[in-house]
Amino acid sequence: MKQQSFQPPERLLMGPGPSDVSRRVREAAARPTIGHLDPAFIAFMDELKGLLQWVFRTENALTLPVSGPGTAGMEACFANLLEPGDKIVVCRNGAFGQRMLEMSERIGAEVVTVDQEWGRAVDVAQVEAALKANPDARVLAFVQAETSTGARSDGQALAALAREHDCLSIMDCVTALGGIPVEVDAWGVDAAYAGTQKCLSCPPGLSPVTLSERAAERIRDRQVPVQSWFMDFSLVMNYWGSGGQRAYHHTAPVNALYSLHESLLVLKEEGLSASWERHRRIHEKLVAGLEALGLSLLVPADERLPQLNAVRIPEGVDDGAVRGKLLEDHGIEIGAGLGPLAGKVWRIGLMGETCREDKIERLLTALGAMKQSDSWE
Amino acid sequence: MKQQSFQPPERLLMGPGPSDVSRRVREAAARPTIGHLDPAFIAFMDELKGLLQWVFRTENALTLPVSGPGTAGMEACFANLLEPGDKIVVCRNGAFGQRMLEMSERIGAEVVTVDQEWGRAVDVAQVEAALKANPDARVLAFVQAETSTGARSDGQALAALAREHDCLSIMDCVTALGGIPVEVDAWGVDAAYAGTQKCLSCPPGLSPVTLSERAAERIRDRQVPVQSWFMDFSLVMNYWGSGGQRAYHHTAPVNALYSLHESLLVLKEEGLSASWERHRRIHEKLVAGLEALGLSLLVPADERLPQLNAVRIPEGVDDGAVRGKLLEDHGIEIGAGLGPLAGKVWRIGLMGETCREDKIERLLTALGAMKQSDSWE
Repeated sequence: MKQQSFQPPERLLMGPGPSDVSRRVREAAARPTIGHLDPAFIAFMDELKGLLQWVFRTENALTLPVSGPGTAGMEACFANLLEPGDKIVVCRNGAFGQRMLEMSERIGAEVVTVDQEWGRAVDVAQVEAALKANPDARVLAFVQAETSTGARSDGQALAALAREHDCLSIMDCVTALGGIPVEVDAWGVDAAYAGTQKCLSCPPGLSPVTLSERAAERIRDRQVPVQSWFMDFSLVMNYWGSGGQRAYHHTAPVNALYSLHESLLVLKEEGLSASWERHRRIHEKLVAGLEALGLSLLVPADERLPQLNAVRIPEGVDDGAVRGKLLEDHGIEIGAGLGPLAGKVWRIGLMGETCREDKIERLLTALGAMKQSDSWE
Repeated sequence: MKQQSFQPPERLLMGPGPSDVSRRVREAAARPTIGHLDPAFIAFMDELKGLLQWVFRTENALTLPVSGPGTAGMEACFANLLEPGDKIVVCRNGAFGQRMLEMSERIGAEVVTVDQEWGRAVDVAQVEAALKANPDARVLAFVQAETSTGARSDGQALAALAREHDCLSIMDCVTALGGIPVEVDAWGVDAAYAGTQKCLSCPPGLSPVTLSERAAERIRDRQVPVQSWFMDFSLVMNYWGSGGQRAYHHTAPVNALYSLHESLLVLKEEGLSASWERHRRIHEKLVAGLEALGLSLLVPADERLPQLNAVRIPEGVDDGAVRGKLLEDHGIEIGAGLGPLAGKVWRIGLMGETCREDKIERLLTALGAMKQSDSWE
């Protein structure tokens, strides 16, 4: 029997990512593959790097797309900036803070956690207390936009605290970038990493990363090499660095990079401020519509991310049945809760291309119809 | 000034990878993105896994595409199978054997190297002597198809030696898979990794990997966790494993996986034996054509890979000028030499879609014309 090409079903992607990807961005990946050392590709890399600096609002020379998903970019930051025995303060208010802790421990770092209830922002005062109590801490890590809960933390205040206490800051902005302000240089963030499949509306698989000169210096001063050869920025930069010969490190994911470049052009054509404003405006419409259906959000209003909405599942409503029906009958994907929020919330993403008025209307109409029918409880 | 979409130039990719990618495979990546936990995607993953088992000639349950380029799949194998202090025998007959050594050392393994001149196959007798001299070695690692030299080593004999000496074997078949026989089960290979951008003729960015039950057991018996959370197969398999719930580990590179699936279908339609035969046949034509131009190959005839041909650069010929002119005037990419072979050889790849009679004729015609002109010396 001849096997068939895969034809994915039509979906509206309103989960925690991937978000909807426009035809324009997807089709960029179908352009002819060229060599990763081709002069035309090297020129393209310079342009892509410029776009990444633009979206991160930074002039950091060490700005590049890690050749792996957000998780790889995340681990690359921890693996390069931490050495065994280093002390790190990790803010943990959701699944990705927990992941930061696990990665740091595997590297052999000594981890101090600042815990916050899932669904709340990181408490800046608690972080300050932790930094005061741990003057030997070398890194402060936090998640600006917690994808597991929809909580938004104050990247500016936390990065400033890190500087005051002579720590490097690592900021997870996987879900933040493009949807809310991320000001790497103005806030003095030392390492930030993102994903392509959230507010950039590019297929998953790459992780834009930027590191400050302070962070680059920390890497140069390491006593032991990064355990991962693949993730070692001091090697990766022989390929992605500017000026002089680009040396082969690993084969760049050429076609995926075409899509990333295209998605950044789309965002630049709209403008960053316009994108932030769109996310804010559509989020408010979604919240109004959800509340009209008797639904409420997990996160307090002033700590909410516009692009990721954790909605409390009403008593008696069957979580899986509702998500399953939304997907099968309406072609709409929303996300399940993670960890302690499993079965308690749905996660509705409004990221990038998904963040459009007609799309939330489709969702609200579908939820409204289901609430009327007996498929709700 | 509005920035432009990137339009790559037309190239014939005859270097060491990426190889030419057909429109069919590239366009698969432009299909709509769906969620990595969508039931339709889970079914697709099962099918993709089946295709990977088919191409690796294995029934290994632990068979999956690592979400990163070949280098990431390579490091994932070493990081999962080695613990600090473990002894490993690494066969080093080119750049990728050297990389194996560097990765192993970073993990904290004790490395015994079996060195062989660049351009020659691994010497099986020397490996046997090294295994006899190191009865405490736990892993034997070798490169079946050395991309840096074009040398082909005997995967069957080396994997058998590993079993005899109670070692796990790690086989690099990045450039081998699809172009020459790779028989994971029949040879008893414990871990094999490949890249997509060689004889599979898929864009770069993913690394098919397969591990035997013996290898899986070694991972289960580890004393310390894999340092990389991203690469830890015991976590990755919660998502890629069969049966039961697929748990989120990282967001899969959905669209890139569409292309990989499509490229494996293309190969299956041709048949593995037919593909091996095509690579052998076109290689022989290339060699005859090169010899007619007075060029000779680095590797002895019985140790040559058909898909990667290291050609000696004749005395007085300007390496960079010839490669530059081939690229600019003829749109043909060939590869430079690496390490000790820099400036001494060109690397001509005949991988997958590149391995066609009309394509080698284009190259031979271009080389012939250049040799006539004064651009040769």
